[in-house]
Amino acid sequence: MNVVIRNTPRAPREAVEGLAAFGVATVHEAQGRTGLLAPNLRPIYAGARIVGSAVTVSVAPCDNWMIHVAVEQCAAGDILVVAPTSYSDAGYFGELLASSLHARGVRGLVIDAGVRDVRELTEMGFPVWSKAVYAQGTVKETLGSVNVPVVCGGALIHPGDVIVADDDGVCVVPRRAAAGLVAQCAAREEKEAMVRARLKAGELGLDIYGMRARLAERGLVYRDAAADE
Amino acid sequence: MNVVIRNTPRAPREAVEGLAAFGVATVHEAQGRTGLLAPNLRPIYAGARIVGSAVTVSVAPCDNWMIHVAVEQCAAGDILVVAPTSYSDAGYFGELLASSLHARGVRGLVIDAGVRDVRELTEMGFPVWSKAVYAQGTVKETLGSVNVPVVCGGALIHPGDVIVADDDGVCVVPRRAAAGLVAQCAAREEKEAMVRARLKAGELGLDIYGMRARLAERGLVYRDAAADE
Amino acid sequence: MNVVIRNTPRAPREAVEGLAAFGVATVHEAQGRTGLLAPNLRPIYAGARIVGSAVTVSVAPCDNWMIHVAVEQCAAGDILVVAPTSYSDAGYFGELLASSLHARGVRGLVIDAGVRDVRELTEMGFPVWSKAVYAQGTVKETLGSVNVPVVCGGALIHPGDVIVADDDGVCVVPRRAAAGLVAQCAAREEKEAMVRARLKAGELGLDIYGMRARLAERGLVYRDAAADE
Amino acid sequence: MNVVIRNTPRAPREAVEGLAAFGVATVHEAQGRTGLLAPNLRPIYAGARIVGSAVTVSVAPCDNWMIHVAVEQCAAGDILVVAPTSYSDAGYFGELLASSLHARGVRGLVIDAGVRDVRELTEMGFPVWSKAVYAQGTVKETLGSVNVPVVCGGALIHPGDVIVADDDGVCVVPRRAAAGLVAQCAAREEKEAMVRARLKAGELGLDIYGMRARLAERGLVYRDAAADE
Amino acid sequence: MNVVIRNTPRAPREAVEGLAAFGVATVHEAQGRTGLLAPNLRPIYAGARIVGSAVTVSVAPCDNWMIHVAVEQCAAGDILVVAPTSYSDAGYFGELLASSLHARGVRGLVIDAGVRDVRELTEMGFPVWSKAVYAQGTVKETLGSVNVPVVCGGALIHPGDVIVADDDGVCVVPRRAAAGLVAQCAAREEKEAMVRARLKAGELGLDIYGMRARLAERGLVYRDAAADE
Amino acid sequence: MNVVIRNTPRAPREAVEGLAAFGVATVHEAQGRTGLLAPNLRPIYAGARIVGSAVTVSVAPCDNWMIHVAVEQCAAGDILVVAPTSYSDAGYFGELLASSLHARGVRGLVIDAGVRDVRELTEMGFPVWSKAVYAQGTVKETLGSVNVPVVCGGALIHPGDVIVADDDGVCVVPRRAAAGLVAQCAAREEKEAMVRARLKAGELGLDIYGMRARLAERGLVYRDAAADE
Repeated sequence: MNVVIRNTPRAPREAVEGLAAFGVATVHEAQGRTGLLAPNLRPIYAGARIVGSAVTVSVAPCDNWMIHVAVEQCAAGDILVVAPTSYSDAGYFGELLASSLHARGVRGLVIDAGVRDVRELTEMGFPVWSKAVYAQGTVKETLGSVNVPVVCGGALIHPGDVIVADDDGVCVVPRRAAAGLVAQCAAREEKEAMVRARLKAGELGLDIYGMRARLAERGLVYRDAAADE
Repeated sequence: MNVVIRNTPRAPREAVEGLAAFGVATVHEAQGRTGLLAPNLRPIYAGARIVGSAVTVSVAPCDNWMIHVAVEQCAAGDILVVAPTSYSDAGYFGELLASSLHARGVRGLVIDAGVRDVRELTEMGFPVWSKAVYAQGTVKETLGSVNVPVVCGGALIHPGDVIVADDDGVCVVPRRAAAGLVAQCAAREEKEAMVRARLKAGELGLDIYGMRARLAERGLVYRDAAADE
Repeated sequence: MNVVIRNTPRAPREAVEGLAAFGVATVHEAQGRTGLLAPNLRPIYAGARIVGSAVTVSVAPCDNWMIHVAVEQCAAGDILVVAPTSYSDAGYFGELLASSLHARGVRGLVIDAGVRDVRELTEMGFPVWSKAVYAQGTVKETLGSVNVPVVCGGALIHPGDVIVADDDGVCVVPRRAAAGLVAQCAAREEKEAMVRARLKAGELGLDIYGMRARLAERGLVYRDAAADE
Repeated sequence: MNVVIRNTPRAPREAVEGLAAFGVATVHEAQGRTGLLAPNLRPIYAGARIVGSAVTVSVAPCDNWMIHVAVEQCAAGDILVVAPTSYSDAGYFGELLASSLHARGVRGLVIDAGVRDVRELTEMGFPVWSKAVYAQGTVKETLGSVNVPVVCGGALIHPGDVIVADDDGVCVVPRRAAAGLVAQCAAREEKEAMVRARLKAGELGLDIYGMRARLAERGLVYRDAAADE
Repeated sequence: MNVVIRNTPRAPREAVEGLAAFGVATVHEAQGRTGLLAPNLRPIYAGARIVGSAVTVSVAPCDNWMIHVAVEQCAAGDILVVAPTSYSDAGYFGELLASSLHARGVRGLVIDAGVRDVRELTEMGFPVWSKAVYAQGTVKETLGSVNVPVVCGGALIHPGDVIVADDDGVCVVPRRAAAGLVAQCAAREEKEAMVRARLKAGELGLDIYGMRARLAERGLVYRDAAADE
Repeated sequence: MNVVIRNTPRAPREAVEGLAAFGVATVHEAQGRTGLLAPNLRPIYAGARIVGSAVTVSVAPCDNWMIHVAVEQCAAGDILVVAPTSYSDAGYFGELLASSLHARGVRGLVIDAGVRDVRELTEMGFPVWSKAVYAQGTVKETLGSVNVPVVCGGALIHPGDVIVADDDGVCVVPRRAAAGLVAQCAAREEKEAMVRARLKAGELGLDIYGMRARLAERGLVYRDAAADE
């Protein structure tokens, strides 16, 4: 029942690197507003933006044994995704595990629990998205699994899915959808660049998007403030 | 029922600029400990301090259509105040809307919901106080209203009220009270400056405020630690 | 019933300074995974690390009177620890009280409630761990006690206990245990340094900690990803 | 600044009694999906349904003095609405205050804080909607106001507004809107009765509401489960 | 992209009815401590216990359109499982939808959001597990999907999976695992019955489970209370 | 370090039975508004009221091993008090452990975590105050301690302290204070009975408590509603 899956397929390298040009909001919109993890997963420091392939870990509550097991399954360009089987904010992860992952070229961690040693992680430049910072130690007593599908931050993540994370949070892209999504993100960004230029020049979204007719049709009323207001 | 009020009166410019010299804590105290929004509205980056006139927006949950409508009603020196009609942490607001507001001289956003593109908003220097950072997109399907009274962060805000926001949170000053409040804030600051100087010189608040008698009267007991403690 | 205990014993200076070399996570582990305060007590700015002796204050909800009383009991090297007798996120503490403590050489504040003036506290370099930033003022009407045992962040703290606080949170060390803990922390750090070097060189925790046999004994299964996955 | 407004107008008796026939959900829908208080205000026992005129109380945090003042302003058919000026879950209200209100014909309490003596309140049949049950006592030190507008559960409530409360929560109806709303509620209920009958007979909402065309137009696809699924 | 899957396979009827003999805790344990939904999904009334096949619905936030679509896909013995694509506590579901489901023999609802009309649902005996009771209405503007995999209460649920719900919460059993699980549940219950009898007779779990040796081996120390304690 | 203290002293039987006549609110007030546990510890069913001597258990997160150990230390009239060393809402306790405690005459459980089998516990009449109902299983891997001081629901509890629990929550009375508190509770109840009678007869608290002068002195203003309001 507890299993470590080795050599799980990743998304094509060019798809992963292609997505690296875009932020979480763009990727989420481009794939039809899906894939976001819950907003309580926050970066431990501002400014990090990473894209990589998920190595998933299902851990027992307050037990980080399987993270040690998962390290061996990580390759350069991966992102570790850790989900306890029930709620926990304990500190499953700190500077030693980060050193080990860093040495393997892993790009960061997404964990639906707590982390510790955030000063050291920040100095090391190892980015983490977690729901708590908490020094509470964990034990190594109960097995879990590596590279099985997990629910993390309320989103379903398969091993090899692409993870995009930045200051806005975390988004998951199904492995087979990654390649196709790059062009959609680029198209979206291009369209936004045009709109941005017009907005900066003082045009209104109401006009650029042609919203006025639909607003009127729905019955929106404009009125001047009363004289005595 | 859904209405956009145009040309709502603002507080006098000199009242607004007068309040710009004071922080949220001072303004809140000076107006009798009223006007604070809930503490879960936090700035997306540290160090911003803004004062301006509220343009209010009542939006449907997970629907940001009316924010686009509200942009047109904003003038230089305003602050946009957005309140959904029921709880939501979705990302109603991002960099494109900020570009549009920025072009009009709007000073910032206070939103009882989520925002996204926080890296871009930070780079742009467009400050936001929100209760979440979340990339979750919204729709444009349901009308709301602009420049009607709204409850935001548990506080009642009328269009044209003065909003003061800094690292401590957000405070609202009723439009007609703004002018009178400036002097009270200044008086308070002056008094605090005197106290501060004495405290830094090592005097005790107990003596400066003359608290000892009342403490004794209430029965406070002083005792040395037991020898064996 | 309401009492101020004067001249409470502190931990030996060399024990306090000895612990100053270690972070919260290390201290927590070294004393058998005990002593952590709840993770919702967060620093108001990143990067502070302090160690000192607790002066404890039990305050009535939304009433900061006893903090003024406690200042007088504080000496250089102390850390003020404030716990309301029921839940509150009001702003019990701001820049004036910090000025007073700073003048006495107090190293920081741990408060199971809110603080305000965080910009000024940050500029002053007076670190605070709190569960909220909130400008909400408090009153001075109800007595409490100083230097009695308090529960703060879910942890029991006696006056004179050693407080260790950094970006990971806050940990309390019983006064009499402090001296003995220094060596244990040092031993732990030394061991970690060795492990860290090996991990950075690419060795696996699985091998360094000798985990493989126990994992197999527990029944962990390794399997290659299916061809069609 | 602290004021007790006497003899505030209530909604017409027949409007209040007219609304008594309807539940919170109906009233909320009939007035355009407005007026709901936050869902964390829950009844202390199941099955109560009350309608009455609001007597509002703004209290200091952890201070119930003004509730005692408000009792005198309550008449038969009123509902007491209590809102602290900042977050508190203390037990502002218990069986003694309920006895006093009960003797005056007050129908219940809505409080954005805590209550206690819930067993006695339940036996007495005095319904309360609160956000906590908590025995924590409060003080009587700081003034507040009675019959001023308050924000309670995130909703703006004026004295004399009609409060509707049942197992679904609490809804406020502006005083002057109450009379007009009765007919709209009745119309809504009548329409629902018809739909209910058809649904119970096995008809589908898809057909009763004529949704199929719009679903198809939006592009909804129907597909049979794959053979191997 | 938005799809309704028809005629999804259910678990064998005898597997579903077999599981009906067991509670959530037993089922969760028997399948290796997996399958629980988050504990904030609570029943709207005490005492209900249901087992059935999941019809899943992915809805847009604050939009219940697809629940109307899903009704048609429900058959007798099913349980409706509704998950918004982002956080919402709005009242997606009330007495009319329940009437329709009830007429089709649906056994209950599990929803990672709010419901309303709880008094009517209780009278009707239609059980619901939800994370909020809230009258807040929803719109019918945005498509979603029916009978696709959803994450509900943090658990992955496929259409046709077996849902077990009682006062302890909700558990999901993968469709193909249901038949095999019945025997494991029965075995577990049988073993528990034996233990229960011995415990009621006054035997200790320490002895029944043979824990004393392992406790001693781990170093647990027994000591009498000090005379002066 | 992990220890089981045997034969801890309890409060005198007549003190415990004396307190059994009073509710949580009365006891809390009578001992100077101290001793309450946090309000998120709620009873699993309404109407239970128990008083007894605490047997305390400090457990590792998600590990209920020490509860089994604690059973042996429980005698008739005791109440089990369980506190994990870090946050957990897992289901540490269910019907089997309750059967064992019930057989020994234990009166109930207070746990700063989750429980399961609430239907069975309700049928058995074994009352529990917990912060969650959750079927999530726990492990038996890590030692803890029995009859050491614990922090539970934010309150410090020593073994042998008296626990009072009812629908209002849970209160702890220090062992040595219990005997003296009975008379204070009785005095308080007597005084309240007199006030209650006068309130029911229509007198106002304002008059009974003589509050009018102090209100006027503080500056409370009475004003009639404006004619046009």
